[in-house]
Order: sequence, then structure tokens, then C-alpha cells
Amino acid sequence: MAFNPPAMATPSRCVADFSLKPIGTQPSYSQQIAQVQDLLRGSGLKSYMHATGTTIEGTWDQVVQWIGFAHTLIHQTGVSRIETDVRIITRTDKVQPMEGYVASVERILSA
Amino acid sequence: MAFNPPAMATPSRCVADFSLKPIGTQPSYSQQIAQVQDLLRGSGLKSYMHATGTTIEGTWDQVVQWIGFAHTLIHQTGVSRIETDVRIITRTDKVQPMEGYVASVERILSA
Amino acid sequence: MAFNPPAMATPSRCVADFSLKPIGTQPSYSQQIAQVQDLLRGSGLKSYMHATGTTIEGTWDQVVQWIGFAHTLIHQTGVSRIETDVRIITRTDKVQPMEGYVASVERILSA
Amino acid sequence: MAFNPPAMATPSRCVADFSLKPIGTQPSYSQQIAQVQDLLRGSGLKSYMHATGTTIEGTWDQVVQWIGFAHTLIHQTGVSRIETDVRIITRTDKVQPMEGYVASVERILSA
Repeated sequence: MAFNPPAMATPSRCVADFSLKPIGTQPSYSQQIAQVQDLLRGSGLKSYMHATGTTIEGTWDQVVQWIGFAHTLIHQTGVSRIETDVRIITRTDKVQPMEGYVASVERILSA
Repeated sequence: MAFNPPAMATPSRCVADFSLKPIGTQPSYSQQIAQVQDLLRGSGLKSYMHATGTTIEGTWDQVVQWIGFAHTLIHQTGVSRIETDVRIITRTDKVQPMEGYVASVERILSA
Repeated sequence: MAFNPPAMATPSRCVADFSLKPIGTQPSYSQQIAQVQDLLRGSGLKSYMHATGTTIEGTWDQVVQWIGFAHTLIHQTGVSRIETDVRIITRTDKVQPMEGYVASVERILSA
Repeated sequence: MAFNPPAMATPSRCVADFSLKPIGTQPSYSQQIAQVQDLLRGSGLKSYMHATGTTIEGTWDQVVQWIGFAHTLIHQTGVSRIETDVRIITRTDKVQPMEGYVASVERILSA
């Protein structure tokens, strides 16, 4: 097989939207999401919180590492199971920052 | 078995965030997302678009039906495969409108 | 606007994979997932459980209604918040039953 | 702030289910999924393909790195946009291998 793992690299850019769910706590977990937001402020990554998740942007390695840190942080508060749903977009056709997605749609809608 | 399907009902409220992906088109599909936004305006449902999806709110039946309409609409434009990722939240502990999720976290962060 | 909601229809077929997460219970929720499997047996829909979800197949309306019934059932057991992550695929290019996806990949791998 | 990023670690174990979608290709992308399966064979990670995704298990860092490699591999075949939906579970209450989830539910159903 021609494939050579050591030569592989992860993408240099991605936009990810993650929805972290602590399982086995109270029905409301805004306390934990606040801790995650606080954590992300220290990441240096651009991030944006919305109703069902948080969008972040950076290199693949940074983005997935910080989501992993968020799991570790919430486990440290006593939550023993966490399930996160992540949507990750990578593109090689152009550099599209996270705010570009909404802007593109709004340009069409207002045309 | 005690379960009786005709007596079942779907939830009276939900918040859903969906990310509709037309497959087999161009890498950029903001044109299709604009059509979906236009469609949703006719739904009477509250909706909010962000970088990786659109959040809507209503009864379970309304919300899932309008996402189905969005599939039909985009198929009608010639897209033959669509994959949508939906996060749906239902709660019986309180009525939480979609904007309540961010507000709860921000209250904690600013405390 | 040319769009006419009463004339819209939801797709006649879909394959959906859903991961239902009861929030605010114990870290293990296999009890609730067993109840959902039991419920689905009464649906008449083809379904298949795997590590992180259950795949079902049918008309759009059936599939999303039964996932809604699953929410109602688990709420009735006392769980006040449920979050479900659903992947839904609709196609107009061909009728692809759920088992066709793995079969297609395996045909290529064994070629 | 007490938080200290350099001291953070990502979880030592996770189960992840990912659904990689090449955008802007043909409606059928089983060719690309076969390439991803082939790639994963070289990872040394346990993996299992089902209708809408592939479940893998390992350390957080391994799992997310190999999903990143899959993006890179498919980009190298000429696909310029890829969207992946990942469900990731981490637990500190017990070591639960991926096959344990279905086994737990089946034990309850057959009781």
C-alpha cells in the first residue's frame, strides 16, 4: 500500500462547531458551558457561542486539542460521562473564516 | 407490552439546530442555504442562522416537517443527495426558548 | 415568492441515524436505550443499533415521528431533558436501503 | 484564573463515531469511504463501519488525529471541501470499549 502514515498531516485550517453534553448531571448544564467558554478564552482561538454549540476556528490540531481540554476540564468537575457532537469543515478551495458562511448567504438573500 | 403507539404523541416543543449539506454539487453551497432561509421565512417559526447551521423552534411536528420541506426544496433544484445533521433538544422541566441557552451562560460568565 | 408551502411534501424515503441522550440521569443510560429499541420494534420500521446510535429507514414522516415518540417515551420515565443528534440522508438518484452503504464500500475494498 | 493550559491533558480514552462527507463530488462517495477504511487499517485503532459512519476507539489524540488524516487523504484525491460529523464519548466512571454499548442494551432487552 502506497499510504505512509508518518508523512500524513492534519489539515492546516478548520472550522468546527461543537456541542458538549455532560451526562448524568442536572438537566441544565449552563454552568459547565460557561466553564468551557472561560477555558476557550485562554486558547487564543476565535470562538462564537450559539444556542446549541460553540464554533471555533484554527488548525485541526489546535481545535481538536482544545475540545479535548474541555472534556478534561468538565470531567475534573465531577462529570463522569461527556458526549460531544462536532461538525468539522475543512476546505482547500479557499480560506473561509467562520463568519464568511453567514455573510455569503446574506449576500445572496439581499441581492 | 404496555406500550400503545396510537396513544403516543411527539413533544409539544423543541429547539433544533440543523446543518443541511447538499452532496454532489459545488464546494460552496450558500445558494442552497439561502433558499432554505427563504423557505423558513414562510414557516412562521423562529429561526437563526449561524456559521454551521440554522436553529429553529416550534412543536416537534412543525420543526421536523419544515426540515423535510427543505430537503424537498433542494432536491427540486437538482441536488440528488442531501445529508442533514440535526441536534434536537426537548425539555419538560421548563420552557426554554432558543435564546435562553446563550443568555443562561452569559449570566454566569458575567456574575 | 413562488414558494407555496401547502404544496410542499417531505421526502418519501430517508435513512436516519439517531443518538438519543437523556440528560440529567446516570452516566449509563442503556436502560433508556433498551426502551427505545423496544418502542421501535412496534414501529414496523427497519432499524439497526450500533455503538453510538440507531439507524432507521422509512418515509421522512414516519422516521421523524418515531424519533419524537422516543423522546416522549423517555420523558415519561422521568427524564426532563433529552438531546438527540440525528443524521438524515435523502436521495433522489436511487433507492438505497441502509445496508447498501456498507455493501458499496465493501465491494470496493474487496475488488 | 486558576486554569492553567499547559497542565491540561486530553482524555486518555474515547469512542468516536464519524461521518465524513466529501462535498462537491458525486452523490455516491463510497469510493472515498473505502479509502478512509483502508487508511484506518494502518492506524492500529479498532474501528467499525456502519451505514452512516465509522466508530473508532483510542486515546483522544490518536482518534482525532486519524480523522484529520482522513480529511487530508480525501483532500489529496481532489475533494476541496469535507464536512465531518463526529460524536465523541469520554468516560471516567469505567472503561467501556465500543462493543460494550450494544452489549449493555442487549443484556437488558433479553432479561
